[in-house]
Order: sequence, then structure tokens, then C-alpha cells
Amino acid sequence: MISLPNHNDTIAAISTPPGVGGISVIRISGPDALRVTLDCLSLDSLEPRFAQFASVNDPISGEKIDDVIAVFFRSPASYTGEDVVEISCHGGYVAAPSVLALLYRLGVRPAQPGEFTRRAFINGKMDLLQAEAVADLIHAVSESGQRLAARMLSGGLSNKVHAIRDELKDIAAILELELDFSEEEITPLPRDEISQKIALAIEHLRMLADTYAAGRILREGALVPIIGRPNVGKSSLLNALLGEDRAIISHLPGTTRDTIEESFVHDGLLFRLVDTAGLRDTEDPIEKMGKERALRVVEGSDMILLVIDPTIRDEYEFEKRIIEKYSEIPMILVHNKSDLSERRPFSFSGVSVMISAIQGLHLDDLRSRMSQMLQQCYRVDGNTLAITKQRHRHAVLQSIESLSRARKALDSGLSHEYTALDIREAAHCLDDITGQTTSEDVLNHIFDHFCIGK
Amino acid sequence: MISLPNHNDTIAAISTPPGVGGISVIRISGPDALRVTLDCLSLDSLEPRFAQFASVNDPISGEKIDDVIAVFFRSPASYTGEDVVEISCHGGYVAAPSVLALLYRLGVRPAQPGEFTRRAFINGKMDLLQAEAVADLIHAVSESGQRLAARMLSGGLSNKVHAIRDELKDIAAILELELDFSEEEITPLPRDEISQKIALAIEHLRMLADTYAAGRILREGALVPIIGRPNVGKSSLLNALLGEDRAIISHLPGTTRDTIEESFVHDGLLFRLVDTAGLRDTEDPIEKMGKERALRVVEGSDMILLVIDPTIRDEYEFEKRIIEKYSEIPMILVHNKSDLSERRPFSFSGVSVMISAIQGLHLDDLRSRMSQMLQQCYRVDGNTLAITKQRHRHAVLQSIESLSRARKALDSGLSHEYTALDIREAAHCLDDITGQTTSEDVLNHIFDHFCIGK
Repeated sequence: MISLPNHNDTIAAISTPPGVGGISVIRISGPDALRVTLDCLSLDSLEPRFAQFASVNDPISGEKIDDVIAVFFRSPASYTGEDVVEISCHGGYVAAPSVLALLYRLGVRPAQPGEFTRRAFINGKMDLLQAEAVADLIHAVSESGQRLAARMLSGGLSNKVHAIRDELKDIAAILELELDFSEEEITPLPRDEISQKIALAIEHLRMLADTYAAGRILREGALVPIIGRPNVGKSSLLNALLGEDRAIISHLPGTTRDTIEESFVHDGLLFRLVDTAGLRDTEDPIEKMGKERALRVVEGSDMILLVIDPTIRDEYEFEKRIIEKYSEIPMILVHNKSDLSERRPFSFSGVSVMISAIQGLHLDDLRSRMSQMLQQCYRVDGNTLAITKQRHRHAVLQSIESLSRARKALDSGLSHEYTALDIREAAHCLDDITGQTTSEDVLNHIFDHFCIGK
Repeated sequence: MISLPNHNDTIAAISTPPGVGGISVIRISGPDALRVTLDCLSLDSLEPRFAQFASVNDPISGEKIDDVIAVFFRSPASYTGEDVVEISCHGGYVAAPSVLALLYRLGVRPAQPGEFTRRAFINGKMDLLQAEAVADLIHAVSESGQRLAARMLSGGLSNKVHAIRDELKDIAAILELELDFSEEEITPLPRDEISQKIALAIEHLRMLADTYAAGRILREGALVPIIGRPNVGKSSLLNALLGEDRAIISHLPGTTRDTIEESFVHDGLLFRLVDTAGLRDTEDPIEKMGKERALRVVEGSDMILLVIDPTIRDEYEFEKRIIEKYSEIPMILVHNKSDLSERRPFSFSGVSVMISAIQGLHLDDLRSRMSQMLQQCYRVDGNTLAITKQRHRHAVLQSIESLSRARKALDSGLSHEYTALDIREAAHCLDDITGQTTSEDVLNHIFDHFCIGK
């Protein structure tokens, strides 16, 4: 468990977004939560979990501040594991802030960003993966990202990580046992059986590391540059794909990059389209592109929409080179202007779609192909459990590295001491993911990015 | 009671403001509220008023959407008087909207703005004055406005209005009784006793009408133009008064007018300062002002800050004429540039303050004088119960008019029939305030201005 300064005082914050609305909820957590609440409510007691109507009155002036509903959650059966009271005030800019100001006057401290969830983590109500899922759930910009976070919140991935970690600790323990009792009558586990166990753990960790692409796409959306030579209709396609969804997404908080990005959601997946207006069909287009920002976007992208104009009569060398260069990235060849020409100017073994961006033809087909390709290429579905952060991936890769070292030591006949040490380190890396061994700095970084009131 | 189309189906909406936050609350009201909730929750039952943890799962895919806390309020012990369920989801743009979309798929209808409160009104949980207080409470921009709404919510003013209405109905009943039994042995109430009763009711209604100024100031803030000749420091004063509070207020929803307005809160009162840059000291300044927009602001204002520069050596005719012309409006004479001169260039019987806007001297003194003057002149304090809408004032004035007619009819010896009729009409006007007789159009207008989810 992590030790934090002042993690046993009583904190409070408004947990609902600021603004005009019907209800604002104040959350209070800590040993004094009940006492302080009763000091300003027109009630003598609060039965645990029972929603009670009450007035909040200023204890000095006696003036009524608001009519509220209060619910008390007794420790440990609460979000934070501490005594918690939730007060539903009237919404708006004054009522809940007035009640909160009163609580502060009565000695409650303003909660820091993420401090309720941090206390839940400290008190063992959830591990770090689950705490991060809470933030992901709140900041989700697509349905499938939100669903992934909801699944993560249930601890499915934590269980997977723990299972591998426990297996590693078991192997290390066996090796250490052999060291301690090497002079005595103990049948040692055969060397290649241990080696196999380590190989299996590495395999599981590789699979876990591979979920990162899916996790990132579900959480942040898929980066999809629209490329093609000038005047093939890239911008028209971007606008056509956004369609009416544009307004829904445009108010969401920043997924901005160096380039202009517009997002839309299809099948619950977020697609972040980038119009790469910079591409030019020069004599050596690939070379020229190398100097351009667009290249970086394309190379870091999750799927490419390559737009062609089939009415152009030439060899399509530019397009063929693009296809060859980016063969590793899922790509859809978009034949635009299908109202003008239905010919396919060159053969392409992948997915191609005929549309007209201007006429609005077959756009739904294209959107469906895009989400199908994303789901297939990144193994994304309604049951996906995936690591979603560079932090997780880094820890998994470090764990794999330690295990590879362990295996090497084992195979080269070194003392089991070294093998056991490396395996323990690999397990330690995994504990870093779920928060058992995570440093205070990393924890601060994680919880500082929460909103206040969660 | 008012009859409305579809007021007995089941409705739902998110009751918290949109945006990223820890918690979003969905409110469901109507006969199917409990059944539909249980259809998508991982629970078999919800005990009334008991906060229960549950998962929301899609009934078709079985996929988990969110972890929530649900509370069931059984009719009639709920906000609307119907069966109500409140579901606390995780905040953000996806979780609660996903749960809401699921409820809609299960047959629940999206709630109209103010529809929950309208149902509370229809089901007799509150009268119209209280329902309007709910909206005022949510949209309040100052503490004292919010507190007034909280007091109104308790029904104090409704009781006052009902008391006068009941008295009027009693008088009318006595007069009608005399009409019915005029041939028989009934001792009629002396004419001047009735006349006195009516006079007393008129007196009470005048007092009620007079609370409108206080109610309006508490609800919307006090309009305070800063006037004075050029270069006396009006804009500096405006900025100095706003001080650090400026940022707090600037995000609040529009109290805009034709003129530039900046607001600050002191002692819980909202002051809406208007910089009347248009004033000019011409040969006949009052005449010239008549053509200007500034004049309208000053004449409709609640308090005037008249700024003078005491270092100017002249007769201050401009200021003296302003003081004379606006003697009806509370005014503070602000001697600016007190760091340069402490002289008082002419005598003024009202409140005057010496400040330096640029040096920041004695601004707190000025702010305190402003709130004191407002409280005294408009009888504003922590117990004020006041009508806050033109609608209320209009109804009270109409009631007074009917009673004046009644008294005239009585005094001129007309049949009691006419007197009784006028008194009944006066009572009817008062019922219009609390909603007993309010037309559907007026109700629609009132509830359309609520936010969705309340």
C-alpha cells in the first residue's frame, strides 16, 4: 500500500460537471463525512444507503441554503472505502457551491483531482488498472472506448496480469527452494520444464503487449489519413464521411495534433480522419513526401484511405508505390467519382470501394468497411480486454526482457540464483501495472489527470 | 389540476449538466420507471430509497455498459409524485448517454425541458410559485438570489398569497350569503366593516407588489450605471470594482443588454455595472442626454454611482442637475482621485465616498456602502419573501384593481352582487400566481424555460 500525506482527513468536491442542470452532486469522504454532513443538514442521523430528503441550513445564520437528498455509505462499503456522503443539491452555479463552501467552513478539505479514486486505490477497493479505467470511462469519446473501460473496471485484465505474475512468482519460488536445499534430498524440476514455463509466460506477455494497438484505438480512436494526389477529392471525402456526425463530435475535448483532424463515430468506433493536403505527385513522390509532415502521420496511422480518381489516364505509379511502401498498414483503396467512371485502373488485392464523395454514393459502405477492417486487423470486439497506456506496454515489454534474460541464464547453465532474480524482476514489472509497486511520482501523474470530484 | 397530453407515460433525461465529471445522474419518472430500470440493471428488485450498486447491461448483447448506483423513489414520495428512479452513472460524454439510449430503446420517452417539475406541479407536489423557484434556484447568479429561491421553494410566499385569497373568498361568500337570504332574518355585516376588510386586503397586496423590486434585484441583480463627465475615472472605477471577482462572473449566462455590462457579487448581491461612456457635459447636458441610450439605462436603474473629479475647479452644475433629476433613485456620490485631492467641492446630503480607482483606495468601503444602500432602499435581507416575475406583479396589480372596483361599488350603494363578483375576480387573479387557474399557454412558457432533466 502507498503512503500519502493527509490521506485520512475528510475531503469534499462537486462530482458533477459545472454548469446549469437539474442536479449537482457533492461527494464527501473521510472519517468526519457523516458528522460534518449532519452539522449542516436538518437531520439527526443518516441511515446507511437510505436516501433522505433534508434542508441544508447555515449553522450560523440559520438561513436555508438548499433542499437536498443525502445518502450515507458506511465504510468500507463505499466508493473510496471510507465513510462517504453524497448530497444531491439543485444544479446551477450557486446552490451546490454554497453547500460546498459551508462544508469547507466546517473543516472539510477540498478534494484534489482524482483523490476519491486514489483513496479507493489506497484502500484496496480497486487496483491501478481499474483506477485508470475509471478515468478512461469518464473521458471516453466513443462507445467502444467507454465499453472497454467498463470491462476493465470489472478487473478482467487485472486478473490476467495477476495470473501471469503469480505463475512467475511460483517458478521463482521453486528455483529458490532448490537453491536453499541444494545439498539435500529434493527432486529438482527439470531445467527444460522451467524453460518451457518461462517461454509460455513470455508468449502470454507478448499477446498482452499486442493488445495495446486495440486498446489505444478503442481509447483514443483510429488515426486514418486520407491520402492521394491533388484533386482526387480527399477533402470532399473527409466532409462526406463526417456527414451529420460532425456536430456531435466537434465539441469533444482535444484529440488535436499537428495536422487538421476531424472525427466521426461508426459502429461505436472513433475514426480520426486527417486530410493530408500536402501530398504531391512529383517525379519521386516518396522521396519528396519524406520531408513532409504528412509522412509522419501516415507512418503512425492505424488505417489508410488511399483515394484515386479513375478518370485519370495514366499508369498510377504514385499510387502503386504508396501501396508498396505502406503494405504493413491496413489500407482501403477508395475509387472516388464513381458517378463519372466505374473502371478500376489497376489491380489491387486488398479492399477497394467505389464511391462518389460529392454525390454521397456508397459512403455507408465505406464506413462499414472501415470499421470491419479495424475490428479484424486489430482484433477489436465487444469482449476485448486490452492494455491502453504506453505505461502498461512498457512494463510488459520490460517483463518480457527480464524473462528472456532468465531463460538465457537458465540455458547457459548459470546458477538458479540469477534466473530466480530475473523472474522476480519480471513479476515486479507486472505489479507496476496493477499498482502494487508503482512509484508515488507515477501515481501522482496518473491521478493528476483525473477531474476533480472523481 | 391541469390536463396535459401524455402526462402519464414514463420519461427520462440526464439531470446533470453535460461535460466531463465524476458523476452523471439519469432521472426516470412514470409508471414504468421501476420495471424499465430493472430490465437493464443487474438487479431483481430495488428497495424504495435504498441506494444499490448495479451494472447496466445491454439486454441484447449482454455487454456491460456501466457500473451505477440506483435509487428508487416510490410514488407519491418522490420529486414528481410518480415512481422515480435515479441512476448515478460515471460522468463524461458516453456512459450516461449510452444508458439513456438503452432506456429509450426500452420504451421510455425523452423528457421535455422542465417536465419533471411540471409533473410535480400537476401532481400537487408544489404550486407554480414553487416550481418557478426551482428554475430560479438553478439559474441563480448570486447567493442572495439563490437563497430567495430556496425560501420560495419552502412555500412561504405561497402561504401569504393563499391567506389573502382565502380572506377575499370569505368576504365574497358573506356578501353572496346576504344576497341569497336577503328577505330573511340575517344580520348583514356592516357595509364599512366589509369596506375595511377590502381596504386591508388592498394594503397587503400593495405590500406584495412592492416586494417586486427586491425580488427582481435578488434574482437578476441590481443595475448600477456609473455616470459622470468624461475623464473622471468611470472606466477605472468599473475595473477597480470588478477586481478579482471579474473572472468568477464573466462565464455566467447572459445578463446582457444594449450596453456593456460587467457584474460582481458583494455580500451575496449581484451588481451589474454599466459604464455609461456616452455622457457629455454640454451646455444643456440633461437635454442632450435625453437622446442617448445611457439615459434609458440610468432611468431604469436600481442605484447610481455618480463619479466626480474633485480636482476640477468649477461649479459642478452638471453633477447638481443629475442629482436633482434622479433624486428618486438611490445614489452614491463617488469622489475619485482621493490621492490627489480630499476636498468635497459641493455639499451633498446623501451617501458619498472618497476613493482612488487607480490606487485601489477604499474600494471595499464603496462596495459595502453599495450593498448597504441596496439592502436598505429595497428592503432586502435574509428573510425577504418577494415576487420575482412581471407575471406575479401583473396579477397582484390586477387583483388590486378588482378590489378597488369592488370597494367603489360597495361605497356607491350598488347591489352586493357586483361587489362579490369583483372580489371573486381579485381572488382569481391570485390563483393565477400559484397556478390554480393558470392557462396552458402560460404554463408552457414557464416550463419551456427550464433546463432538460429538471
